[in-house]
Amino acid sequence: MGKIILTGDRPTGKLHIGHYVGSLRRRVELQNSGEFDEIFIMIADAQALTDNADNPEKVRQNIIEVALDYLACGLDPSKSTLFIQSQIPQLTELSFYYMNLVTVSRLQRNPTVKSEIAMRNFETSIPVGFFTYPISQAADITAFKANTVPVGEDQEPMIEQTREIVRKFNSVYGEALVEPEILLPDNQACLRLPGTDGKAKMSKSLGNCIYLSDSEDEVKKKVMSMYTDPNHLMVSDPGQVEGNTVFTYLDAFCKEEDFKEYLPDYKNLDELKEHYQRGGLGDVKVKRFLNSVLQAELEPIRKRRKEYEADIPYVYQILKEGSQKAEAAAAATLKEVKEAMKINYFDDVELIGEQAKRFKGQE
Amino acid sequence: MGKIILTGDRPTGKLHIGHYVGSLRRRVELQNSGEFDEIFIMIADAQALTDNADNPEKVRQNIIEVALDYLACGLDPSKSTLFIQSQIPQLTELSFYYMNLVTVSRLQRNPTVKSEIAMRNFETSIPVGFFTYPISQAADITAFKANTVPVGEDQEPMIEQTREIVRKFNSVYGEALVEPEILLPDNQACLRLPGTDGKAKMSKSLGNCIYLSDSEDEVKKKVMSMYTDPNHLMVSDPGQVEGNTVFTYLDAFCKEEDFKEYLPDYKNLDELKEHYQRGGLGDVKVKRFLNSVLQAELEPIRKRRKEYEADIPYVYQILKEGSQKAEAAAAATLKEVKEAMKINYFDDVELIGEQAKRFKGQE
Repeated sequence: MGKIILTGDRPTGKLHIGHYVGSLRRRVELQNSGEFDEIFIMIADAQALTDNADNPEKVRQNIIEVALDYLACGLDPSKSTLFIQSQIPQLTELSFYYMNLVTVSRLQRNPTVKSEIAMRNFETSIPVGFFTYPISQAADITAFKANTVPVGEDQEPMIEQTREIVRKFNSVYGEALVEPEILLPDNQACLRLPGTDGKAKMSKSLGNCIYLSDSEDEVKKKVMSMYTDPNHLMVSDPGQVEGNTVFTYLDAFCKEEDFKEYLPDYKNLDELKEHYQRGGLGDVKVKRFLNSVLQAELEPIRKRRKEYEADIPYVYQILKEGSQKAEAAAAATLKEVKEAMKINYFDDVELIGEQAKRFKGQE
Repeated sequence: MGKIILTGDRPTGKLHIGHYVGSLRRRVELQNSGEFDEIFIMIADAQALTDNADNPEKVRQNIIEVALDYLACGLDPSKSTLFIQSQIPQLTELSFYYMNLVTVSRLQRNPTVKSEIAMRNFETSIPVGFFTYPISQAADITAFKANTVPVGEDQEPMIEQTREIVRKFNSVYGEALVEPEILLPDNQACLRLPGTDGKAKMSKSLGNCIYLSDSEDEVKKKVMSMYTDPNHLMVSDPGQVEGNTVFTYLDAFCKEEDFKEYLPDYKNLDELKEHYQRGGLGDVKVKRFLNSVLQAELEPIRKRRKEYEADIPYVYQILKEGSQKAEAAAAATLKEVKEAMKINYFDDVELIGEQAKRFKGQE
């Protein structure tokens, strides 16, 4: 059995550098590692609709943005299958049958769902589709027989739900599904990048995101106005690096080579932090360094994005071909699932023969 | 727009005469009335699996029983489309999207679901598939653009749930779905035929059902041992007809002609009841009459069933062709649904042109 990855994003907005360090950069590394037999990257429009049913246009508009961000980051359609969730009808069929294997109270206990519900202020008006999305995710993962799901730690309960469904299915109907493992990010700083204003979460509505599609000027402006240590008023003051967004971003982005290139007075990030902590290092200098580091990383992404933006029909073509390939994989799994459940009646010669015999016997 | 019927049964057992007077007889009348443009009769195996996930074999075995009962009663594949729910994948796709339009608390308030959950002693371990089956039913009904759903009064909340989904869908995405109306049985006695033991419900486990497939002897034996009025000890005693199963069955089955044929001492059921009530009429006589009435109704059904039982592959063929026809109808609706939701991206020339222009404008 090969090593297969399934991962993806809800297309509710352009992707930002939080997505990049949290998952996209890793995905590209995994893709280029050559260690995986299949990599499925899903634009989860159907999942996005579970809490955006009233605003389908937002989802529709953002599919292309996410696709452009993927391609810009280096996801390569010849190595990874980029596809749109709603174009794979088999996923809804799998979800439908998995729903019989999970209880309502089990869903209610899912901590990820609980916190997502709280975040959206749904309270009692939770859409059923949103409430049941862990089951839909199990369908997404199992449809492709993915054994590796690279996501953040907060998604562990979702993966556990998938594993439970797989075990239940295999024990009731016979082995057809594969249990997935979570692949956690290796850099702690990348788990959840804060907003440029220091708030815990990057969010479009707070205007505190740096997007992968931002221009050089936009990135620079955002970096130069970033939240640092509010008590670091004079250059000579000692500064804090914990909770200082500029340093958190450096933790996530900068490499030792960057010092040689852009800030040769320091050997590495530890030295820079030490200086900041003992006083005598101004925010502007650190921000300029972060800007250089970010620009170096974002420049090729921005350039590739522009290239793909110039040929939108081609991007849709990539998604279409990816969706066709993903559909074929999901259809193969669904066929096995239906065989295991023995609901493939018309292909089931044994069933028809058995029944004919049974009624003959009754005569 | 034509008049279209959708109805069906869960294949969890052979059908009994409660099903017959409650729905099957009516369906055949509606079929033969010529008033309907399309009649879809669904063997709801996928719905049966929502509370029989652990016992798929029971569902699998009973599909053919239900199909035989249908054909035996006079449902005619040239007039009605007989199909198996699980063979129509479009239904799960519709369910999936409708789930975004219904809240969890709305499902919890559904009185039919509440009482079904109580009946099954599910308490907190309700399978999600069972909990959400009103949404799946909405998919079944709307997939065929059915405007007429002939079911019992207890199903009214289910039809109302479908109407709500239709209204919500049409208002959010644009008119694509049709609101169904319930068509109630016209004979009150037929709403819920009690078991032969007088218990409110016919149930396989209680052994109190008369099946459409029962032999002449079996029917006679069940009728002759039926529950009547426990206080009617001597023929001369006055008897009760209310709650007397034999009379309830007569209410559901006998016609005035039956008296001429089998019990010419009485003009009609009212006269028979009067005699029973004032005393002097024995149970055995009434039971013999009921037996004659039932046998006359069941004889042609039994005969037709035997004919179909002799050619089981042909019955599967009927279901296969019906399922193909049903799938084509559901696929046409799903296409409209996806167009309304604008999630048919790859066919959406406008979208692709729009996006191409948008990115050109950003340069």
